Amino acid sequence: MKKYSVILSLLFVTFVSLCFAQETEVKEDFKPSTLNQPGQEYPQVNSQGYARFKINAPEAQNVHVSLGLGGRGGTKLTKGEDGFWTGTTEGPMDEGFHYYHLTIDGGTFNDPGALNFYGSVRWESGIEIPAHDQDFYALKNVPHGKVEQILFPSPSTNTSRRAFVYTPPGYNKDQSKRYPVLYLQHGWGEDETAWSNQGCANLIMDNLIAEGKTKPFLIVMTYGMTNEIKFGGLKDFDIKPFQTVLVDELIPYVDANFRTLSDQPNRAMAGLSMGGMETRTITLANPDVFSHVALLSGGSISMDDLEKNPDFKEKVKLVFVSYGSRELENPRRGPWGDPKENTKAIKEAGINTHFYISPNTAHEFQSWRRSLNQLAPLLFN
Amino acid sequence: MKKYSVILSLLFVTFVSLCFAQETEVKEDFKPSTLNQPGQEYPQVNSQGYARFKINAPEAQNVHVSLGLGGRGGTKLTKGEDGFWTGTTEGPMDEGFHYYHLTIDGGTFNDPGALNFYGSVRWESGIEIPAHDQDFYALKNVPHGKVEQILFPSPSTNTSRRAFVYTPPGYNKDQSKRYPVLYLQHGWGEDETAWSNQGCANLIMDNLIAEGKTKPFLIVMTYGMTNEIKFGGLKDFDIKPFQTVLVDELIPYVDANFRTLSDQPNRAMAGLSMGGMETRTITLANPDVFSHVALLSGGSISMDDLEKNPDFKEKVKLVFVSYGSRELENPRRGPWGDPKENTKAIKEAGINTHFYISPNTAHEFQSWRRSLNQLAPLLFN
Repeated sequence: MKKYSVILSLLFVTFVSLCFAQETEVKEDFKPSTLNQPGQEYPQVNSQGYARFKINAPEAQNVHVSLGLGGRGGTKLTKGEDGFWTGTTEGPMDEGFHYYHLTIDGGTFNDPGALNFYGSVRWESGIEIPAHDQDFYALKNVPHGKVEQILFPSPSTNTSRRAFVYTPPGYNKDQSKRYPVLYLQHGWGEDETAWSNQGCANLIMDNLIAEGKTKPFLIVMTYGMTNEIKFGGLKDFDIKPFQTVLVDELIPYVDANFRTLSDQPNRAMAGLSMGGMETRTITLANPDVFSHVALLSGGSISMDDLEKNPDFKEKVKLVFVSYGSRELENPRRGPWGDPKENTKAIKEAGINTHFYISPNTAHEFQSWRRSLNQLAPLLFN
Repeated sequence: MKKYSVILSLLFVTFVSLCFAQETEVKEDFKPSTLNQPGQEYPQVNSQGYARFKINAPEAQNVHVSLGLGGRGGTKLTKGEDGFWTGTTEGPMDEGFHYYHLTIDGGTFNDPGALNFYGSVRWESGIEIPAHDQDFYALKNVPHGKVEQILFPSPSTNTSRRAFVYTPPGYNKDQSKRYPVLYLQHGWGEDETAWSNQGCANLIMDNLIAEGKTKPFLIVMTYGMTNEIKFGGLKDFDIKPFQTVLVDELIPYVDANFRTLSDQPNRAMAGLSMGGMETRTITLANPDVFSHVALLSGGSISMDDLEKNPDFKEKVKLVFVSYGSRELENPRRGPWGDPKENTKAIKEAGINTHFYISPNTAHEFQSWRRSLNQLAPLLFN
């Protein structure tokens, strides 16, 4: 027994040592992140997914980066003799896009080396960790669609509101062709810029269309009016103002100003996180408006939903539910139950469903880029 | 005589006192800048054009704002007991848009309260000083055109390049109508986002069209490849790579993908600052491509130019030259001579010219917003 203990102890020590050795063996093949501002060398990323930062602030007392190993408090930078603060994340990051910011002497600022992306109700710094599957959202030499900024009248909010509309390659060529439409929502703290900036929705579509993997369709992205909601204040969230803007104002405007197929079978709604919850509520209440429904890290449709909304059950053509794998490792079951079990149950009840898990990603944009890439080929068939 | 001296002295003292009194009488009617990030209270501006800043950085040693009275070194902030650094510009700012940044403990960062705009080869903070004439670029309840992001193939640079295309209201309605095109360039350190973000080009056009003051036309904005040029390195600037992208790649793409009038009489080029210099060089060399030419704080066309380019003299329909009034108070005559005298001379030589001076503005976007507002009604008549 004692012998075994010794062997186990040795094995344990060896195992721990190996882990430490692995942790400290950071490959020195760092390159500037592809989301850096023009000409900026930092932040950098290496082939293992580590991120390295370098910030000029010679008289600062403290410089800290919010990014690091999940939940372990980010990365503390240390000052060199040249006045630059540098540091590397404690471990590799998940593949794909990450928001972050700096804390400098107690204040929140962006990394001057990185481009900015709207998230957490502020323009945050962004960094891109190279992904093994990054080809599907790469800028390639294929025909490109457009992302059109429109300002549509909104009597209910007494202003002109902004939306972005992706039109596929060739949209302007054949003036007789009409297209289905996907209404695609961002998450809490984000806005209508998220899906084309950090989500690469236009490039994902360009590439899918070039490979013949999806029908061409329009994507409409507008602000989901979610930013005033505090974390935890979801119960008080009133969907009506946004539902009015979307269903009564934006959809008629898009149908009047773009060559759309404007009937229910050709209209889909999808959203990520809080946008998924908006999608769920609005599509359940409007089964004559939307036929295809996708919730990305944003809840699911339950048997209870179907029972309460018989029209939805009858008219919906697809329910797509997706999550990052790490979200399911630590399941956060919302008020609507377990997403996987819910989706299995409504499938057995006859609903056309798809459940997708993005491997090795969390509640982050790489999960949602992949989800859109999975979703698009399933729409409007 | 002595009596008059005393009176004059008294008057002088009174005058100086009045001036000092005026300088210190800052009206406390500060409001958040219209270019703040959502929900942000600072930076603020008052009705006199003063700007006030408030930055959270409790442990910082030094916080400084680059914005202040022109050339006088910006605004130093002082720390309050709450850990916030505050300060107000020494005097009122020019009306309109201004770039700025913070210096915190020796490093350059953006104001977390303000939106970001690309200038000086970085995303800078932006602030908007209310202008007496701001109505012409306000978001109004009028029909709105679109700003379309396109990715056009560029074999000469071996990539897909980005441009933004303004299409006027109704562009998608009457599919038989074709439009003239203005190619509109940003300045040094800026990019293709400048004219619609800080320039409000789309809103200026929407408003002019709504009032029947201009023909509707397309505006195409792409990156002028100016960012690699160091200040003072202009002599080494080679226009050919950008001219190839613009004339041989972008123009054919736009003519193939939008309903343009694709002949020389219906094609204009304009640019601000360095973009004006690009416009000058490219239009002089391509009189069969462009008929209308506008240089905004970016040089002028001289008699010498006309003599060297007889085709240009024969074929150009308009030469528009503009400056901010403060630029002419301290005339910086480029290698092409005095802009006002040059423009007067070519007018006398028979060229249709317009010379516009933006009142009380410098080398800044308010001069260029006003210039576009003056220019548009003169185009394609």
